[in-house]
Amino acid sequence: MSDDNSIFIGNKPFMNYVTGVVIQFTTKGAGEVCIKARGKFISRAVDVAEVSSKRFLDNNVVVKDVKIDSEQFENKEGRQVRVSNIEITLARK
Amino acid sequence: MSDDNSIFIGNKPFMNYVTGVVIQFTTKGAGEVCIKARGKFISRAVDVAEVSSKRFLDNNVVVKDVKIDSEQFENKEGRQVRVSNIEITLARK
Repeated sequence: MSDDNSIFIGNKPFMNYVTGVVIQFTTKGAGEVCIKARGKFISRAVDVAEVSSKRFLDNNVVVKDVKIDSEQFENKEGRQVRVSNIEITLARK
Repeated sequence: MSDDNSIFIGNKPFMNYVTGVVIQFTTKGAGEVCIKARGKFISRAVDVAEVSSKRFLDNNVVVKDVKIDSEQFENKEGRQVRVSNIEITLARK
């Protein structure tokens, strides 16, 4: 899967991301789309995946895989912090 | 897997949930623990899974499966709302 099919979730309006996913599958003919998010945006990534596949793509697209992971690094104050991430792969049925 | 091995994430202090997961695997000898959450608590569920398995259980426990889903229902104002959920299964290596 090329990186062009990845959508990274941040704090833009919710529907921007949903539209992005839908366009990948419809106009751009993608077979798979990967929705990625970190930290507090993880919940939003799940919402985008669910709304895109169930409401807009009428279940023609399904959740193929969900991966979670985390990275630990030092923040500005020198403390170790761990930030989680998620990758949700949607694919045509 | 019995329901006793499920931990539902809400707004209690973060470490309560991490301790809950760790105790299931250590004191209670569970082979698998399922971490569940809905809506905005989904990000937190991923954090609990990552911190429990990587920091406290020293990678002796891994993420075996992640499932996402959503339910649509009518809210008090009569509008259709969709709420996402996640189920993260941790298992001994």
